[in-house]
Amino acid sequence: MQVVVWSEHLHEQRSAEVRAIYPDGMHAAIAQLLRARLPVAEIGCATLAEPEHGLTEDVLAATDVLLWWGHLAHDKVEDRVVARVQQRVLDGMGLIVLHSAHLSKIFTSLMGTRCNLRWREADDRELVWTVAPAHPIARGVPQPIVLPRHEMYGEFFDIPVPDELVFISSFSGGEVFRSGCCFVRGKGRVFYFSPGHETYPIYHRDDIGQVLANAVEWVHQSAPSRIETRRSPNAPTGWFESATPASRSTS
Amino acid sequence: MQVVVWSEHLHEQRSAEVRAIYPDGMHAAIAQLLRARLPVAEIGCATLAEPEHGLTEDVLAATDVLLWWGHLAHDKVEDRVVARVQQRVLDGMGLIVLHSAHLSKIFTSLMGTRCNLRWREADDRELVWTVAPAHPIARGVPQPIVLPRHEMYGEFFDIPVPDELVFISSFSGGEVFRSGCCFVRGKGRVFYFSPGHETYPIYHRDDIGQVLANAVEWVHQSAPSRIETRRSPNAPTGWFESATPASRSTS
Amino acid sequence: MQVVVWSEHLHEQRSAEVRAIYPDGMHAAIAQLLRARLPVAEIGCATLAEPEHGLTEDVLAATDVLLWWGHLAHDKVEDRVVARVQQRVLDGMGLIVLHSAHLSKIFTSLMGTRCNLRWREADDRELVWTVAPAHPIARGVPQPIVLPRHEMYGEFFDIPVPDELVFISSFSGGEVFRSGCCFVRGKGRVFYFSPGHETYPIYHRDDIGQVLANAVEWVHQSAPSRIETRRSPNAPTGWFESATPASRSTS
Amino acid sequence: MQVVVWSEHLHEQRSAEVRAIYPDGMHAAIAQLLRARLPVAEIGCATLAEPEHGLTEDVLAATDVLLWWGHLAHDKVEDRVVARVQQRVLDGMGLIVLHSAHLSKIFTSLMGTRCNLRWREADDRELVWTVAPAHPIARGVPQPIVLPRHEMYGEFFDIPVPDELVFISSFSGGEVFRSGCCFVRGKGRVFYFSPGHETYPIYHRDDIGQVLANAVEWVHQSAPSRIETRRSPNAPTGWFESATPASRSTS
Repeated sequence: MQVVVWSEHLHEQRSAEVRAIYPDGMHAAIAQLLRARLPVAEIGCATLAEPEHGLTEDVLAATDVLLWWGHLAHDKVEDRVVARVQQRVLDGMGLIVLHSAHLSKIFTSLMGTRCNLRWREADDRELVWTVAPAHPIARGVPQPIVLPRHEMYGEFFDIPVPDELVFISSFSGGEVFRSGCCFVRGKGRVFYFSPGHETYPIYHRDDIGQVLANAVEWVHQSAPSRIETRRSPNAPTGWFESATPASRSTS
Repeated sequence: MQVVVWSEHLHEQRSAEVRAIYPDGMHAAIAQLLRARLPVAEIGCATLAEPEHGLTEDVLAATDVLLWWGHLAHDKVEDRVVARVQQRVLDGMGLIVLHSAHLSKIFTSLMGTRCNLRWREADDRELVWTVAPAHPIARGVPQPIVLPRHEMYGEFFDIPVPDELVFISSFSGGEVFRSGCCFVRGKGRVFYFSPGHETYPIYHRDDIGQVLANAVEWVHQSAPSRIETRRSPNAPTGWFESATPASRSTS
Repeated sequence: MQVVVWSEHLHEQRSAEVRAIYPDGMHAAIAQLLRARLPVAEIGCATLAEPEHGLTEDVLAATDVLLWWGHLAHDKVEDRVVARVQQRVLDGMGLIVLHSAHLSKIFTSLMGTRCNLRWREADDRELVWTVAPAHPIARGVPQPIVLPRHEMYGEFFDIPVPDELVFISSFSGGEVFRSGCCFVRGKGRVFYFSPGHETYPIYHRDDIGQVLANAVEWVHQSAPSRIETRRSPNAPTGWFESATPASRSTS
Repeated sequence: MQVVVWSEHLHEQRSAEVRAIYPDGMHAAIAQLLRARLPVAEIGCATLAEPEHGLTEDVLAATDVLLWWGHLAHDKVEDRVVARVQQRVLDGMGLIVLHSAHLSKIFTSLMGTRCNLRWREADDRELVWTVAPAHPIARGVPQPIVLPRHEMYGEFFDIPVPDELVFISSFSGGEVFRSGCCFVRGKGRVFYFSPGHETYPIYHRDDIGQVLANAVEWVHQSAPSRIETRRSPNAPTGWFESATPASRSTS
């Protein structure tokens, strides 16, 4: 399994506070969480500053799961790269969208909505509650996850109704948030997970690592469906009768 | 209630066969179906050839429900008009997407997927089965609707899982299709309904008129929610405590 | 529209504290909330102590919407009455299940799960947040509803995934709860709404009245579908071809 | 993984036609399909005639996945055994319900609805179409599965809306059917799959074996969630703060 952790890598360069928490970048911390839990996966990183943001056609073609963290520079991500990522998701690549990437181009393009939410930076305590105990992403996760201090993200979160809702968070200020949301788009699977503000050491936590590793496994498909979705095929009457079983599954 | 039926109005000008079925345009036939069943609604039309395709800011601001039929010229619809329609849907305008408009820019933008499907023009008999009898859009609809001849649309239909699935069609060639699909996007409601190929008199049928009138009523909201979705508001701790009940509902 | 508010009517007789809040019974307060908002509806009441709990075949046959509040005596409700109510729901009667009736026989029978939850009586402040602004049950409802003191109900709430999730509550102790849940069962619609503990004046509130009136309108169907669901019909090949349009819709 | 295939085993004893297809019983054929594809699973059988129908407390406690085929004798299955199976599903055991078991007590108890459908024994050709290509149960399945002759099962199928809809079938007589449906109930996963009438050699087919093996893997949970669902716990304020991470996940 090939995993790529993508991050803007801007806060870490601009803020000593963030750099103190994530000296090698947030992507490095996330990759470390995954490496410790998914020994058979190969886990790389890519950032905004690289040519094509590190997401060339070749890189994406070889990627099974992409994680995405962005905040300051959503509009600096090139449209052609966003379109490329979207096509890969629709073809079966898994995508995990983290925290402030709710406003990233790739997420809003896949959702079709504005993806706005309510927010506050005030050291709220966040509790992340499992509401789907039979879901693979909730496996082994404490009920609740206790984040002593975090940015508040609150409803209404302007997303389509998730195909599966795994986590709901509360904040000490009283807000609630659908913090763990599964979506299927085309042949790909998408998971949005809200914890991960840059000024808190969220991506050094064991419970968050458990969620992310579970999510990588859930969005990953070793052999995405061969059903045709790139075009609208003209199908003569009885086409499936003459097809061999093997070729039937290819379109 | 202000309803606008939008149509390309190209097939009717280019093909005598289509013109014979829809001499005043498909939009006129659809509008007629609705007028007969929704006496209190005001029902107008707009077409591709008009300036801004007839969908200016003022027209859209006054529109409660928009129906959309397109096929040949999806790429001729201006991006800024598509963006405008999408924003209106997210703000609460109802949208009904018809037949070949599954590939329209407005539908694919709201879905985030390719929206491809399998198709065949071979005079298949289509049967439209209700699978959600308690849904308002199925009210008074025959089980099944029998369309003696229609274009085949078959699975896999590359859409997000519908929020509510109302109709599934079969075709005499053996295909199935999710032919009546409800989606909520932002504060707006969207209904996709597949019957309506231009070479068949689908929009002269009583049962189809019943579905369309039901759908207009379902997607219509007399007073869309005032919850804030155009931006991500910064909400200080306790903001809702000091708000009056009236102002609470505005954001 | 015929509405029946059913209640145990036990707390009010046993506790002076509850009687002070609901001197005529909780059902009377709920009925009053509805009468003020649904002038065309006829709103009656029924209680546990009546013969057949006030829910005879005749009463149920004439009822469009039933509201159900119970707590102490779920096991005192006769199984044959529960079965009767369940059949009426499956045939199209609307049902609104309130607060502690999450453990009522009628709710657990329709859900198929245990419907357990976490709880605490400690004067928590509850905030009821709308997460489905386009849903009719959220129309005109403040964002959030602020209940200064209420019993805590927390996740995990052991219900099937709601067909539509309208409200999520937070509590000052940090718990979250899916407090407004829509279900479709057979040809009927069901809404569960958690606010309404007997020791707080919840059913005297304007915002709660708004939710309940919206819910009555949403679960109500003036003419439930005539699609056959009481038996599994044997359907000869081509049965729908010879049927008249009118008879087609009856089965 | 411990799998039990349960079957009535009545048709095979009463009908030479069925016995010719399934000389060792339908359960044996199903078990054989699974053994060939799930080498690490231990796969046993149980039938109606055994004491407690072969589903004692001990057997169920050791079972990870139960498959259920029944038709003639749903009412002969003891209520206490049905209740026991239901509790095990709610505690995390996987359940696969086959064909005519749509009317079994265990399925209707978990659904809360009547589960009726339309049917015909007339050698219809059935096509099973995948409508969820990213779902694990559709992995490697031909598009469509072609069953040359089968009993027709048609809509309206009176079930709750499936949590995930994987397959839709068409029949040569024109009907459609939601033939592959996922449900989550409590901590357990349930899959209904309609192919499998006793007079056709459905359970000797490679493609059906693929679906069943996929389904066993999907409903199976190696370690079901430890979240408390057997009772409604009273939770003092701040209970989760003093809990250790390990104990937090147990309730």
